[in-house]
Amino acid sequence: MWADESAIGRSPDTGGYTRGGWSPTEREATHWFLDQCAARGLSVESDGIGNLIAWWGASDGPGVVTGSHLDSVIDGGAFDGPLGVVSALAAVDQLRAEGFEPGVPIGIGAFVEEEGSRFGMPCLGSRVAAGVLSAEKALQLKDRAGVGLGEALDNAGLDPLRVGPSPLLERMGTFVELHVEQGRGLTAPVGVASSIWPHGRFRFTFGGEANHAGTTLMEDRHDPMLTYAMTALAANKQARLAGARATFGRLSVEPNGTNAVPSQVTAWLDARAADTATLESLLAAITKQATERAERDGTTLEVTPESVSPIVDFPAGLRDRLVNVLDGAPVLPTGAGHDAGVFSDAGIPTAMLFVRNPTGISHSPAEYAEMDDCLAGVDALAAVLKDLAQ
Amino acid sequence: MWADESAIGRSPDTGGYTRGGWSPTEREATHWFLDQCAARGLSVESDGIGNLIAWWGASDGPGVVTGSHLDSVIDGGAFDGPLGVVSALAAVDQLRAEGFEPGVPIGIGAFVEEEGSRFGMPCLGSRVAAGVLSAEKALQLKDRAGVGLGEALDNAGLDPLRVGPSPLLERMGTFVELHVEQGRGLTAPVGVASSIWPHGRFRFTFGGEANHAGTTLMEDRHDPMLTYAMTALAANKQARLAGARATFGRLSVEPNGTNAVPSQVTAWLDARAADTATLESLLAAITKQATERAERDGTTLEVTPESVSPIVDFPAGLRDRLVNVLDGAPVLPTGAGHDAGVFSDAGIPTAMLFVRNPTGISHSPAEYAEMDDCLAGVDALAAVLKDLAQ
Repeated sequence: MWADESAIGRSPDTGGYTRGGWSPTEREATHWFLDQCAARGLSVESDGIGNLIAWWGASDGPGVVTGSHLDSVIDGGAFDGPLGVVSALAAVDQLRAEGFEPGVPIGIGAFVEEEGSRFGMPCLGSRVAAGVLSAEKALQLKDRAGVGLGEALDNAGLDPLRVGPSPLLERMGTFVELHVEQGRGLTAPVGVASSIWPHGRFRFTFGGEANHAGTTLMEDRHDPMLTYAMTALAANKQARLAGARATFGRLSVEPNGTNAVPSQVTAWLDARAADTATLESLLAAITKQATERAERDGTTLEVTPESVSPIVDFPAGLRDRLVNVLDGAPVLPTGAGHDAGVFSDAGIPTAMLFVRNPTGISHSPAEYAEMDDCLAGVDALAAVLKDLAQ
Repeated sequence: MWADESAIGRSPDTGGYTRGGWSPTEREATHWFLDQCAARGLSVESDGIGNLIAWWGASDGPGVVTGSHLDSVIDGGAFDGPLGVVSALAAVDQLRAEGFEPGVPIGIGAFVEEEGSRFGMPCLGSRVAAGVLSAEKALQLKDRAGVGLGEALDNAGLDPLRVGPSPLLERMGTFVELHVEQGRGLTAPVGVASSIWPHGRFRFTFGGEANHAGTTLMEDRHDPMLTYAMTALAANKQARLAGARATFGRLSVEPNGTNAVPSQVTAWLDARAADTATLESLLAAITKQATERAERDGTTLEVTPESVSPIVDFPAGLRDRLVNVLDGAPVLPTGAGHDAGVFSDAGIPTAMLFVRNPTGISHSPAEYAEMDDCLAGVDALAAVLKDLAQ
């Protein structure tokens, strides 16, 4: 299964994956998933935006859902998302081979556009399903090529009129997401999540004055690139001091000409910390240094929060139950957002399992997990499902 | 004339101009120029790439050519280029009104893609015309949308097979370009050029490792954005120390996702100085600091010269003749490249006139010159043409 799934849409140049939501490569992975479900006789339910749950078990009532996502960041790795879907299929195979008969249905979910790499909104599928993002707002989103979400759905054979809170969630009695760990936080093969760090995306707009790069005296310039450059260095330093994370990974320069001092630099700060107070003081420290530099450069700065997610504390009872089933597996937080966080916030009892990442590399073609650890993840997931679905 | 020309392709949002070579707005400006020439009974000659000279005077022999360019940088100003073309037409009108009869023909030139804003090669039209850039190399150029020069010429009704050294230059006995000054270097209304500073464009490729912005420990990162940011600040400081110019105005980030540590940042350095030794030591100082920072960040750096132009010293005899005609006008160098530099290097006796720029702003919608200074420029150009074409 892993060999088949991980061959889909792999770039021959970088070895990475670019599976934006509803793109051809993401659709190919989704069709692969549907084929796997059909081969196992699972009955698949879908919702308007394209989230899927494949059910094992005759009952129509609520069940235990596992799974993850099949989309990726731009030029991402093989494991982030697909590992949770493939492991879910493998765990169901294992339980069936053992002759286990679930007391409640077991579902395998694949939730769409989790990374937000196409429409800029992480967990887009789960947010719409949970009703925390309205259909109206979702359908206003456009990708970088200007294609609206409605058009993308239409091209994928989905009906934009059906976008909205999802009936799939009514049958989600419990949700357990297995995911590759992403920060060298795990030294055992498998761990259990405690929380998701609070996370903010902030747009920094640095305004200056376009000018000729060859003739304008250095002292006559109002160059927003300099203010940005100092801010990027300050963000890195402040994150280190706070034990937090701060990244400027996306940038847009106007007019972006070699021989022109820029008129504007727009840069997106991704900031995360173990708690909200640390995140807020991190942003305040970065903004203060940027503002002081802007005054010196004669430039302007506007900071716009694009999305700020509070901490997700997974319910302690369910977490302890998983730790117990897994003979005292380690418990750890994560700095990454997940559909599990959205479902937990929506009131669904939710837990996460992590599989060890030996290098800590993620969102990169070099993302990697050992096969033995992945198999330990399948065993752990099967044990958890067996316990929860008795 | 000024009101008509400066209305063409002006952005209602920024007030700026984006007239890349052979683009619809540049073509509209070119058609305006052709209409002006036709209305004056001037006979227009063109070459394969689209350079134009409109002749006043019956003789087929060499003459005195003035003029400039009608293309612009991305979101540039009204004066850089068009002022030289409009002033040339106005100077000819003035000489005719005075009843002046030129002893040799007077030509008004419009040279294409001077800014290089579409195909990345400044003075593209004049370089090809002078034979310093071969047709083969020119036709390999592509714009940012992937359109090749041949296709762009074809779309503009020009024949790519005719691209090459231009017969227009055989009739260019002398060339005088009038241009707006661009760096607050001129306190009188009109000045005369001494030289064009040496100028280099260098591509800095910073390589790192893509990673998850939320989970990767700050100390595990190899983030090329940090190396770039420090290099941008170093370039600014070194240019100030050297009395030179250094600008990072163009940037490309991979994968350019908000939640990904970048794998690569490509940045273009525009560097200029009064002499070659200063330019070389400036580049060496910036490269040294960038390399040291790359070692600390665990990133890589490659510096590729894309174009390096040596100093252009305009011939002293012609320059002094202009100064004399203009009653001791000030003489000054410029940091900006011009078609005049290409023609001078090609052995054509060449001079430049500058019109005062009160703010020093250029390559920006805010570029400006006073109408009185522009009219003084027309008077000066008419006096110079009268002297040279007697």
